[in-house]
Amino acid sequence: MPSFSVVANDPCSRARAGVLVTLHGEVHTPIFMPVGTQGTVKAMTPDELKEMGATIILGNTYHLMQRPGHELIGRLGGLHRFMGWDGAILTDSGGYQIFSLSDMVKVTEDGAIFRSKLDGGVLHHLTPELAVEVQETLGSDIMMVLDECTPYPVSVEDAKRSMEVSLMWAKRSILAWRKRGLGLFGIVQGSVYKELRKEFVERLLEIGRGEFSGYAIGGLSVGEPIQVMYEVAAFSADLLPKHLPRYLMGVGTPEDIVEAISFGIDMFDCVLPTRNGRNGMLFTSLGDINIRNSRYKDDESPPDPHCSCYTCSKYSRAYLRHLTEAREILAARLATIHNLHFYIHLVKEARDAILAGNYSKWKKDFLDKRKEMDV
Amino acid sequence: MPSFSVVANDPCSRARAGVLVTLHGEVHTPIFMPVGTQGTVKAMTPDELKEMGATIILGNTYHLMQRPGHELIGRLGGLHRFMGWDGAILTDSGGYQIFSLSDMVKVTEDGAIFRSKLDGGVLHHLTPELAVEVQETLGSDIMMVLDECTPYPVSVEDAKRSMEVSLMWAKRSILAWRKRGLGLFGIVQGSVYKELRKEFVERLLEIGRGEFSGYAIGGLSVGEPIQVMYEVAAFSADLLPKHLPRYLMGVGTPEDIVEAISFGIDMFDCVLPTRNGRNGMLFTSLGDINIRNSRYKDDESPPDPHCSCYTCSKYSRAYLRHLTEAREILAARLATIHNLHFYIHLVKEARDAILAGNYSKWKKDFLDKRKEMDV
Repeated sequence: MPSFSVVANDPCSRARAGVLVTLHGEVHTPIFMPVGTQGTVKAMTPDELKEMGATIILGNTYHLMQRPGHELIGRLGGLHRFMGWDGAILTDSGGYQIFSLSDMVKVTEDGAIFRSKLDGGVLHHLTPELAVEVQETLGSDIMMVLDECTPYPVSVEDAKRSMEVSLMWAKRSILAWRKRGLGLFGIVQGSVYKELRKEFVERLLEIGRGEFSGYAIGGLSVGEPIQVMYEVAAFSADLLPKHLPRYLMGVGTPEDIVEAISFGIDMFDCVLPTRNGRNGMLFTSLGDINIRNSRYKDDESPPDPHCSCYTCSKYSRAYLRHLTEAREILAARLATIHNLHFYIHLVKEARDAILAGNYSKWKKDFLDKRKEMDV
Repeated sequence: MPSFSVVANDPCSRARAGVLVTLHGEVHTPIFMPVGTQGTVKAMTPDELKEMGATIILGNTYHLMQRPGHELIGRLGGLHRFMGWDGAILTDSGGYQIFSLSDMVKVTEDGAIFRSKLDGGVLHHLTPELAVEVQETLGSDIMMVLDECTPYPVSVEDAKRSMEVSLMWAKRSILAWRKRGLGLFGIVQGSVYKELRKEFVERLLEIGRGEFSGYAIGGLSVGEPIQVMYEVAAFSADLLPKHLPRYLMGVGTPEDIVEAISFGIDMFDCVLPTRNGRNGMLFTSLGDINIRNSRYKDDESPPDPHCSCYTCSKYSRAYLRHLTEAREILAARLATIHNLHFYIHLVKEARDAILAGNYSKWKKDFLDKRKEMDV
């Protein structure tokens, strides 16, 4: 089972640096995990991910169980071997995608019945037990329990009903869990209602004590105002055990991440660097740029003057703009390399600042710089 | 001006091995040149091209003059610098694309007026002088004269009329040529009519003597039967000077290339390895495979068991099939790497066989093997 230890605490915030040991190597937290939905981080090879410092990536249960199928991946030796990635893998449970990507048919106490858009309308029945089985078959280093992700807004009554379902599923996930060398995280829901978040955490801790290897905070970044997201994330993080890793699911912008680190969040994933990269949006230390803008037409400077990634050390904004306009695959590749490098190094620098005891100053400098330039 | 020398002749065929020296390095012939239409070989970085042994790539005048514009590339230091490629570059003249990709408006003696599909219908006027100017501005190591590529079939009268235009343009190209450090190739047309090919070569040699750094054979692989293509290519190659490189434009399959090498062709380009790769078609030493076929669903073997490329040394057919079905960018990348590696190493092995004096035996073995396996 993955083990976690906190190696430094920031004196002026709840930020902490830690080490998460998995069967596929050490993960230094805070960490950003690139999203590899369909058995590949879009446009990247595993070697490129290694090169940019990635140590753990995400895989999506929902997608992989439908295509190519978890049994197939299992027969071929598991997801690591299938995709040629020997670092750690965290898989979600499929819950989020069922609610966001499928034509939902029904949520019962037993599980979720949904009609997939991936395979031409076949009915699927995802139970907590199956979600664990799929993730164990994939050989995920860190698995997630099946949960119901509430939309925003949701009434407090509906959020309560949903909580009962998610908590029951959490319990059943533990009972279904066979491969104890692989970690299992519980997920806190409760929408934006603090009293629900509190009750959820208390009951989840009761269920998970001595069992869960970490806790995720779900149901945020689904449309609520940013200040509400910050408040609920900070509130939830505070309730979670200090000795276990905390994962804020699906968050967020660079600004969100440096904020959430100061709440004591250790793990992040987000599609922004990969998805926005494919659309020509580049994150830089001086602010974000849309490379399609005609101002970059003959701009010979690299995307980010302070970046050491492959893209910035070799290509100009003018060339990237041309590739993006021409819809070349290389545009998606170079932008993805840069954006992932930016995110991974952002959390790495944050960690260094925590170790040096000056996270708050580093954070302020980072945020100021991001507003600085008219890029 | 690029210089060429033949270093070996095969005793049993017209195949020869040579060295073409350009401002951007030596090119060992026979050579396969990956096609980099819009300032990038689709899905590849320059480093990956180097890694697989590419020494010269193609750029397309027609595309680059419209987007991002040759003046822009010129201001940014030329095409090599713009795209980060320090090997040699050969550019076509735009002639072929005008006839295949545009709504033609008119061919006059002066040049071709066409309506581009790239930039929303702007009228362009490409003259032989402009084609040279564009290519000089790009900084191409080997430029092509503007020519009219006849379709198949074409009447002998139309082919004759077209020959007069192309020959006049060839003459004007030489007159317009300023940067004599860059090479200029003449292009032989004449459709499938041997008497026209003969007349074309004789008159083109008259025009180009002491000027052209090499000769291309154009107007083939445009729909004529394969045996006709072989016959006309062999016939045309025989008429060309032995001491200059011969380039068979846009050809072809692996089988076509090994045939054409035995006719004394030195240079090849083709979109098959890149385009087919993006569609899931892989060239292998044992025959071609469509990776989408369900028989590869759980096939753990590499695409080509005899290949040492990055793709074959690291990924299974099952994984490539999954990526292709899921329309992942990595599918296009891995297939392109393999296919280009296959083509480049195919001509490299052909060259080694010529140097060893056993090209005919190597060719027979290669062709037999390609039919061998039920992949």
